Amino acid sequence: MSNSAIQRIEEAYQAQLQRTFYAAWPENPKAYAEDANAKGLEAFQRSLANNFSGLDSSGSIGWIGEEVSPFLQQGLGIQYPSFSVDALISKAESAQKLWQKTSVETRASLLVACLDKVAERFFEIAYATMHTTGQSFIMSFQASGPHANDRAMESISMGYKELTRFPETVNWVKNMGKFDLTLHKNYKSVAKGISLVIGCSTFPTWNTVPGLFASLITGNVSIVKPHPKSILPIAIVVAEMQRVFAEAGLPAGVVQLAVDTVAKPITKELAEHKSVKLIDYTGGSAFGDYLETLSNKTVFTEKAGVNSVILDSVQDPAAVFGNLAFAASLYSGQMCTAPQNVFVPAAGIKTAEGSLSYDEVVAGIAAAVTGLAQNPKMGAGTLGAIQNEITANRVKETGSKSNGVAAASISVENAEFPDARTASPVVIAVDAADIEAWKHECFGPIVFVVKTTDSAHSLSLAAACAAELGAITCQCYSTDETFMTDVEDAMNASFTPVSFNFTGAAFVNQHAAYSDFHVSGGNPSGNATFTDALYINRRFVWVGNRRMG
Amino acid sequence: MSNSAIQRIEEAYQAQLQRTFYAAWPENPKAYAEDANAKGLEAFQRSLANNFSGLDSSGSIGWIGEEVSPFLQQGLGIQYPSFSVDALISKAESAQKLWQKTSVETRASLLVACLDKVAERFFEIAYATMHTTGQSFIMSFQASGPHANDRAMESISMGYKELTRFPETVNWVKNMGKFDLTLHKNYKSVAKGISLVIGCSTFPTWNTVPGLFASLITGNVSIVKPHPKSILPIAIVVAEMQRVFAEAGLPAGVVQLAVDTVAKPITKELAEHKSVKLIDYTGGSAFGDYLETLSNKTVFTEKAGVNSVILDSVQDPAAVFGNLAFAASLYSGQMCTAPQNVFVPAAGIKTAEGSLSYDEVVAGIAAAVTGLAQNPKMGAGTLGAIQNEITANRVKETGSKSNGVAAASISVENAEFPDARTASPVVIAVDAADIEAWKHECFGPIVFVVKTTDSAHSLSLAAACAAELGAITCQCYSTDETFMTDVEDAMNASFTPVSFNFTGAAFVNQHAAYSDFHVSGGNPSGNATFTDALYINRRFVWVGNRRMG
Repeated sequence: MSNSAIQRIEEAYQAQLQRTFYAAWPENPKAYAEDANAKGLEAFQRSLANNFSGLDSSGSIGWIGEEVSPFLQQGLGIQYPSFSVDALISKAESAQKLWQKTSVETRASLLVACLDKVAERFFEIAYATMHTTGQSFIMSFQASGPHANDRAMESISMGYKELTRFPETVNWVKNMGKFDLTLHKNYKSVAKGISLVIGCSTFPTWNTVPGLFASLITGNVSIVKPHPKSILPIAIVVAEMQRVFAEAGLPAGVVQLAVDTVAKPITKELAEHKSVKLIDYTGGSAFGDYLETLSNKTVFTEKAGVNSVILDSVQDPAAVFGNLAFAASLYSGQMCTAPQNVFVPAAGIKTAEGSLSYDEVVAGIAAAVTGLAQNPKMGAGTLGAIQNEITANRVKETGSKSNGVAAASISVENAEFPDARTASPVVIAVDAADIEAWKHECFGPIVFVVKTTDSAHSLSLAAACAAELGAITCQCYSTDETFMTDVEDAMNASFTPVSFNFTGAAFVNQHAAYSDFHVSGGNPSGNATFTDALYINRRFVWVGNRRMG
Repeated sequence: MSNSAIQRIEEAYQAQLQRTFYAAWPENPKAYAEDANAKGLEAFQRSLANNFSGLDSSGSIGWIGEEVSPFLQQGLGIQYPSFSVDALISKAESAQKLWQKTSVETRASLLVACLDKVAERFFEIAYATMHTTGQSFIMSFQASGPHANDRAMESISMGYKELTRFPETVNWVKNMGKFDLTLHKNYKSVAKGISLVIGCSTFPTWNTVPGLFASLITGNVSIVKPHPKSILPIAIVVAEMQRVFAEAGLPAGVVQLAVDTVAKPITKELAEHKSVKLIDYTGGSAFGDYLETLSNKTVFTEKAGVNSVILDSVQDPAAVFGNLAFAASLYSGQMCTAPQNVFVPAAGIKTAEGSLSYDEVVAGIAAAVTGLAQNPKMGAGTLGAIQNEITANRVKETGSKSNGVAAASISVENAEFPDARTASPVVIAVDAADIEAWKHECFGPIVFVVKTTDSAHSLSLAAACAAELGAITCQCYSTDETFMTDVEDAMNASFTPVSFNFTGAAFVNQHAAYSDFHVSGGNPSGNATFTDALYINRRFVWVGNRRMG
């Protein structure tokens, strides 16, 4: 078991090093057993209106849970064991020494075993994700299942490589002229301590497991604090991990689930606890900024950003508008990678078949967005549902206070879930000067088509936006090589990656494990990256000892 | 030239990876030309009472300098060009784009060329170091010459490896069932911006060049802000670097020297400037703590610590006392690695020839310290001179207010420099309970022999001290394997390395390039390490771009 896990880790690391396509866990639901889907659905349904089983509950002080399905607009009724902060910390502290002393090889093998166990529950996790986040089934399956496992594997493999970078022991020999001075040295990776991983409501496993597995591979025990409205997917993951650790004779304190409620949050108390040394966070900027200021903590954040599209010149406008509409509609614009502001010159754009005016571009995007939402084969599956009421209200309000609405947000018919909370993107034409309208994050299905002086102006606005407000993606459509170079230089200088001329099956939203760094860490959208060496090395400290004779 | 530099970098990286002994630049003065020493001395003497030549002075607003030789207790009279902060930043900003666009290979080759040029001035740098820091000639030569160059090379080689870790471009191909989706991707290491490197008075090059070369290899232009009393050694280094860059057609803004005075410091203004993104600092904890709190900066610190010796049981007490006396006396205890507190059980220690009482241990250490200071062949060369008056006064005051002085600090005769400011270590016996006496940093030649309940008590005090106040080294003398394991575990848990049973030519003070990590970065003595991958990777950001078709 151990050897094969290490081989798989090596393979994953080579893929990561080469930035090539690689899927450690198949992402196609058809690759699984024929009855896997039905069994997953059954398991999900059994968990409804019930106490969640499989998690360590010793020392719990009650059972809590308040998740609501965005597709059903009904509570799930699932209850999870809740713990005092002191109980969580105390269990973590007593597990820390054992976990630190567990060899890197064993840690790595156990963590791969955890992912294998998680993979057996991908369908159940998919339904759990659907009914907490509002993602469509297929996105729920991919994002919370194989893609999340691959991102976790990335942490394990980068972690394993960094931890084994230097020899454990050496004899250091220095010639001193008449004799050799020999020192026996060892080098230890010392874990920083307890790791707190704070999840978000929209991607409860994909955004949680990279930090969780990075902390664990580097010897830090972890407390996972999910969003109170998106617990079930990660609860299944943690339960499987606790089972694997228990079978290996390790205490449940190696990884714990810390559930709370919106009314009684425990995140600050956990984050500020002196024994918590590492914090991983995905969520809004205000809380992320607060976490980053805590002293004596190593903090990894993915916060909000404002993603831009620079529309300069295109070959085939229909293909471009279709791609943009999909990118903006996928999971109703609730992806951190979704575009928000589309910058278009006042004079319009060149295409292979002549120019399109600004108004024609606006109309083209609006038509593509509405067409997708109304397409009975595409709409519901692409848009999914709106995770929470606040987002739904933001869409309504943004539309109602704008003069330039080119496509109104509409409800999307969902035959399977007639009560689903849905909203297609509102598309709003706005002048660049009206920065109060577009120059801030509008989370959800909201697209501004911003009229600029020219493409250079578009670029300067996009770059400034990324530098000031953060950006996780930028998309550029251009047939002009010089301009494309300018865009790459300027956006990269704001630590923002650029995707050029995506059409067809390539979407700006998708960041592939082993190949695309997710969040650069260099602008206000976050201070860390899935997954570079930094993401690993900030979690432990090298200490070398020397011995004479 | 370029190929050979890259080969040398590879060789240095392999040494670093294997943690083996390696000297890229010979550390033995005899390895240099016969007249090198005389020429170096001449060059140093020519610089006295003169404007320093070789540094870019365009746009300077005057000439300043106030260095004083601790050996002569006379001003050196060397003046350096001074600049406004705006001028420094503006030159740096205009150089940044060029330097970022310079390929990693070219940057690496140029930086190695800089070190080769610096090596030609090792003897001059040695005299410059002597007469600013008070180090003996031999330490000045080693620390500011070959050892500093090796530490710089470590940054170059680790930097080169990290920057070339991933391919620059790949074709990413994902099978989508009926077709392949292909994206052309590139990956860029984007420099964070302007780097400020703040030097200290005692090791003006050794502590400056690791951060300087790490920032430069990763594409960040740098401003070096030396301590106003220790400018000359690093001025020579920066002058050689500016010459190499100028010959390559690069502007002086790639590396600048920002000289100030004690009365009119410019460090805060530089550090707080919005364009300064990276700060490297060596010095006192208060200023280091302030730098660490600055927002939107990446800060690397080496601050103060309190280093412990745990004396449990020994084979040969004379060898141990001799080694301790040397470690405490080397450069008059002004090394960040020097021991301060020697913990000894009240019942004394076991030796191969019976027990020694606590009082006998105190007397043994005191005798060894005084014997070394009074040894005409060893004293002056080991102790050097006291860099500044404050340290000299601290030694006097600490002695005068203590009841337990076992060895008084004495002046050390220096035949070559009769006016040298010297002080041998004061050795003070103190009870563990008297924490006001020993539990804080006493920079300089001050040693406390702290009486503890037993060795377990010694360890708990040393570990707590490291965790609370920081520690860069810890020394343990023990013949008990179980106890040694406890010491390693407990001190490592406070992120402090341990050196066991050093006698003879092995001294706790010495941290060898390519093998010993210097400062762990995990306790209050600093937040960074010479040189792990983190030391490099925090200085730049990976950004990946994708292109269709």
